[in-house]
Amino acid sequence: MQFMSDNAAPVHPRLWDAMRAADAPDTPYDTDALSRELDARFSALFGRDCAALWVATGTAANCLALATMVDPHGGVVCHEEAHIEMDECGAPGFYLHGAKLLLAEGKGAKLTPDTISTVLAGITRGVHQVPAQAISVTQASEYGLCYEPGEVAAIGALADAYGLGLHMDGARFGNACAYLDTAPAEVAGPVDALSLGFVKNGGMGAEAVVLFDTEKADMIRFRRKRAGHLQSKGRYLAAQIHAMLDDDLWLENARAANAAAAIIAERAGHRLVYPAQINELFVAMTAEERAAVREQGFSFYDWDDTCVRLVTNWATDPDHARALGKAIASL
Amino acid sequence: MQFMSDNAAPVHPRLWDAMRAADAPDTPYDTDALSRELDARFSALFGRDCAALWVATGTAANCLALATMVDPHGGVVCHEEAHIEMDECGAPGFYLHGAKLLLAEGKGAKLTPDTISTVLAGITRGVHQVPAQAISVTQASEYGLCYEPGEVAAIGALADAYGLGLHMDGARFGNACAYLDTAPAEVAGPVDALSLGFVKNGGMGAEAVVLFDTEKADMIRFRRKRAGHLQSKGRYLAAQIHAMLDDDLWLENARAANAAAAIIAERAGHRLVYPAQINELFVAMTAEERAAVREQGFSFYDWDDTCVRLVTNWATDPDHARALGKAIASL
Amino acid sequence: MQFMSDNAAPVHPRLWDAMRAADAPDTPYDTDALSRELDARFSALFGRDCAALWVATGTAANCLALATMVDPHGGVVCHEEAHIEMDECGAPGFYLHGAKLLLAEGKGAKLTPDTISTVLAGITRGVHQVPAQAISVTQASEYGLCYEPGEVAAIGALADAYGLGLHMDGARFGNACAYLDTAPAEVAGPVDALSLGFVKNGGMGAEAVVLFDTEKADMIRFRRKRAGHLQSKGRYLAAQIHAMLDDDLWLENARAANAAAAIIAERAGHRLVYPAQINELFVAMTAEERAAVREQGFSFYDWDDTCVRLVTNWATDPDHARALGKAIASL
Amino acid sequence: MQFMSDNAAPVHPRLWDAMRAADAPDTPYDTDALSRELDARFSALFGRDCAALWVATGTAANCLALATMVDPHGGVVCHEEAHIEMDECGAPGFYLHGAKLLLAEGKGAKLTPDTISTVLAGITRGVHQVPAQAISVTQASEYGLCYEPGEVAAIGALADAYGLGLHMDGARFGNACAYLDTAPAEVAGPVDALSLGFVKNGGMGAEAVVLFDTEKADMIRFRRKRAGHLQSKGRYLAAQIHAMLDDDLWLENARAANAAAAIIAERAGHRLVYPAQINELFVAMTAEERAAVREQGFSFYDWDDTCVRLVTNWATDPDHARALGKAIASL
Repeated sequence: MQFMSDNAAPVHPRLWDAMRAADAPDTPYDTDALSRELDARFSALFGRDCAALWVATGTAANCLALATMVDPHGGVVCHEEAHIEMDECGAPGFYLHGAKLLLAEGKGAKLTPDTISTVLAGITRGVHQVPAQAISVTQASEYGLCYEPGEVAAIGALADAYGLGLHMDGARFGNACAYLDTAPAEVAGPVDALSLGFVKNGGMGAEAVVLFDTEKADMIRFRRKRAGHLQSKGRYLAAQIHAMLDDDLWLENARAANAAAAIIAERAGHRLVYPAQINELFVAMTAEERAAVREQGFSFYDWDDTCVRLVTNWATDPDHARALGKAIASL
Repeated sequence: MQFMSDNAAPVHPRLWDAMRAADAPDTPYDTDALSRELDARFSALFGRDCAALWVATGTAANCLALATMVDPHGGVVCHEEAHIEMDECGAPGFYLHGAKLLLAEGKGAKLTPDTISTVLAGITRGVHQVPAQAISVTQASEYGLCYEPGEVAAIGALADAYGLGLHMDGARFGNACAYLDTAPAEVAGPVDALSLGFVKNGGMGAEAVVLFDTEKADMIRFRRKRAGHLQSKGRYLAAQIHAMLDDDLWLENARAANAAAAIIAERAGHRLVYPAQINELFVAMTAEERAAVREQGFSFYDWDDTCVRLVTNWATDPDHARALGKAIASL
Repeated sequence: MQFMSDNAAPVHPRLWDAMRAADAPDTPYDTDALSRELDARFSALFGRDCAALWVATGTAANCLALATMVDPHGGVVCHEEAHIEMDECGAPGFYLHGAKLLLAEGKGAKLTPDTISTVLAGITRGVHQVPAQAISVTQASEYGLCYEPGEVAAIGALADAYGLGLHMDGARFGNACAYLDTAPAEVAGPVDALSLGFVKNGGMGAEAVVLFDTEKADMIRFRRKRAGHLQSKGRYLAAQIHAMLDDDLWLENARAANAAAAIIAERAGHRLVYPAQINELFVAMTAEERAAVREQGFSFYDWDDTCVRLVTNWATDPDHARALGKAIASL
Repeated sequence: MQFMSDNAAPVHPRLWDAMRAADAPDTPYDTDALSRELDARFSALFGRDCAALWVATGTAANCLALATMVDPHGGVVCHEEAHIEMDECGAPGFYLHGAKLLLAEGKGAKLTPDTISTVLAGITRGVHQVPAQAISVTQASEYGLCYEPGEVAAIGALADAYGLGLHMDGARFGNACAYLDTAPAEVAGPVDALSLGFVKNGGMGAEAVVLFDTEKADMIRFRRKRAGHLQSKGRYLAAQIHAMLDDDLWLENARAANAAAAIIAERAGHRLVYPAQINELFVAMTAEERAAVREQGFSFYDWDDTCVRLVTNWATDPDHARALGKAIASL
């Protein structure tokens, strides 16, 4: 019973169907019919004009999005435990040509106007320091916590005041929308660019870069090509994304994953390090306890010495979740 | 009837089957069982130790391979019409951090020891010039011409003599193997790294970077991650590649594509700008002639004012090829 | 008798005086009084608002200037024998993060609207190619030829029509002004940024980057710092530049260098490969002739198999020039 | 009375003399006699083979040195308040092509094997994290503290154990040698590359990159050119460096600067935030106290809310130092 990663989940059947339906000759790269519809599709979803591009990974999506806002000599304020800082092997340094991540604090890996302002206040020495040019928030955060619309709005106001771009890493944006039970436009708030993840949510290999600053769309298309991310059979990526949006499958999948986590959470009780909101739980366990639970057939990730990370997904069997919850409760 | 691009072809059914077979939980990134088998699989194919990594595109494969050989201050000798020079939006400049392509001449977009030597002979001014560190050949070339094993060996000897790395862009390597009717190891020759393409040959989104200099494998794995090319559900890419190699499907597909091109070629006669070897033909046509052929339902690419490019693929209907051949013959 | 390079010349005495005069405590980097006056000084010289920064080398000046115009995924049209292409060890690739030089032809290393247009006309394949974003001309050219004001204006009009930036590499800009006997503003024409060289013209280690697009000044100040070119004792660089501009010393020096070359040129006659305009001459000589001239105590650079390069400078002794002229005439 | 920065000091007269002595024609770039002697000169100074190159700034020296050790996908362990992290506008990100600084703690901005090990211990997640490839220490540290030879040796042993390069930022290396009263070879310890600063110590615009890993010398010469740091009249930089080393002028200057600081320090007493070792003092003062001292004609830098930074230099008048000491003592 696998609670290691939502990347370990299978691909949703409706995506297989969509890919097979796309399996006819069409023009290459992103000139096919499905790819050409993405701008309109996401503009409708968010209720404002945007450009939308498929890419294979969240890392590429994040970096391409940030490249619309940040010069090689600039900086991005992000949380010190953000994925772009911790888990992408320096990809922002590569895509942004040496631009710097300016690390801010915040409980549960969430930024606040205060913690961002602390970083900005330290930038006082002119050309000797990297200027901040963007803020990147993660919705939901590395610890599975969601920004309420008012929280994103407040950060957006700060970004505006300082003339900074605002990026949202939405690797689990669908889970955040499901938890907040709020329209995507509000969950994204005033961001300039959003990395909208589908792979962890039942996809195979397609994420969306959504640019609300549509003037940057041309630039980012060049950058995608140059990064080797313009797949020649892009129609199969576009097909996945359309299938996800059809009848809100992405929200349905996210709700299922969140619900499975909730089953575990209600049994994990005080062991939860953070409130259970989406499909990630951080549960305090000793080494012995971990061994005991693993012996019952559960696999999961050792986050650090104090806790483990449990991740559910769209296909998690609720019975497995219940079983894991019980195993934890009975420690 | 589509002769525009082999990227427009559908995915081969056995790849769909393989991907569906991989559609069970496994560990993410490249830690799954299928990805872990790639090194051994390609070592067997080539009869010498190598490391093999999947990536989604030929551009990424080429650039990652070159990154094992070339410093940011270095240069790569390639043909002036090579794909890395003409069609990748400066991707080598991005991945190699500003390294330079040093352009050589050669008929049919093929390099020779002579044309390479001419470039090398011009590098005489010490630190004022970029030093050559690698040679990149394309097998088959942009004009669909294959290097005979002896030709690759001669270039390899030159590379050795100058201490240069040797890279092969094998976007249509399978077609070259099929045409030459020679074992892959000989078709690749003494290259240090090979970008082995599958997408144009019936794949969906998986190419292989094959490193014969296995000491560079670790480095290239970091670079792949950092470029956003380490897909979290890599098992679907690995599945495609295994299916391609199973029972030599990749060669079977390549032979089918080459055969379809041959059907056209024998009817195109003296209009052929280059000898027909693989699945690409360059056919001299006037604007009026192109219009006439298109009117009969054929789509293809205007290469330049003098000729068009016709590309067949594994799924090209021989009847379509015959029809196109006749259309050209009757011009 | 040295005709190898104008970089071999000594520093002009008035620059030594100016540097010694600056040898009192002042604030570091570019916050000293002399550095702060540069914007105004060059705005007066050119009769239009500009920002001016010192840097130590022409390579840095060229690259920083280009960085105001060209994205990492962009391209710069320049002559195939331009210094930035041939002699800077890939510096533009480094400073522009992989942007590409798009090489154009032209007699005497001079671009024309026609040769530039040929390059631009080849950019037709969307994201698969690097978009041109700037044109770089060299005044005077690598072969010592000057653009007449009308020629620069015509290239400027082309740049405007295509929305491209226009950069001028003015490593020998003073020599061009002296030859053309025209105001610097007209010699520069409608350029957006000028690298104005002083080192070859009697300086020690200070060139100016002159930005007529003053909105880019802040950005370029960050880039200069980040490239390690913001010297902490910048006042000594500013002092050199001020001394050069005082009483038009830079033009006086350039005239002296040009005059010395003219002395040689009138004796070299039909051996001149290009018309003698500034302080560089390209003179056809066989290997035996070169040896004969060298035996008489002259040092110079072997340009290629067909000709040598002779360079004079502000301090060249006219008698030495005469002697060299005679030596050539008597071959 | 200026205690703002050692960069504000004048150039030492013996350097002026040396530069004037070099003011005769010689070959350009680094092919002149003085530049060609640097390798031997520094090899003698350090008692082991090394390559030595001049550059204009410490930022360039640090970055070029690090480029011999760190790949674009790699990381450098440095102190969180190191100059390369805090004051160089992201220059390491530029020169190292996006490589990351991995920040360690340590009192007085000094690293210890323990604080370095803590950073290294956090690198556990394979390709998802940047691998450490070098350690950079600052001798003396940002807070004016010196590493004892044993301390550098211990860090060197750690670097060896992990296969990491060891870089020393020696912007005030001379001051450290003077304070430690120890031979340069021991003060540098087992470093692979040293940025040896002269500009703050009476120079005008020349620092040395000293490479003990001489196999990297060629590479770094290319990198210097490509960064626009190969000055065409390099002989004036080489002249400065030779003059500094002649009769140990650099140590004499450093001792003078240290002595002036000691004069202040003995009067500043408990206000010293760190022990006085070299020519930098950090002195606790309130805003009112700062104002009172400034009113007496002293200029200095507000480090933060708690303290100011006082910097002496080779030319500091001991009477000024005494006066400043008294002013502080009488607060």
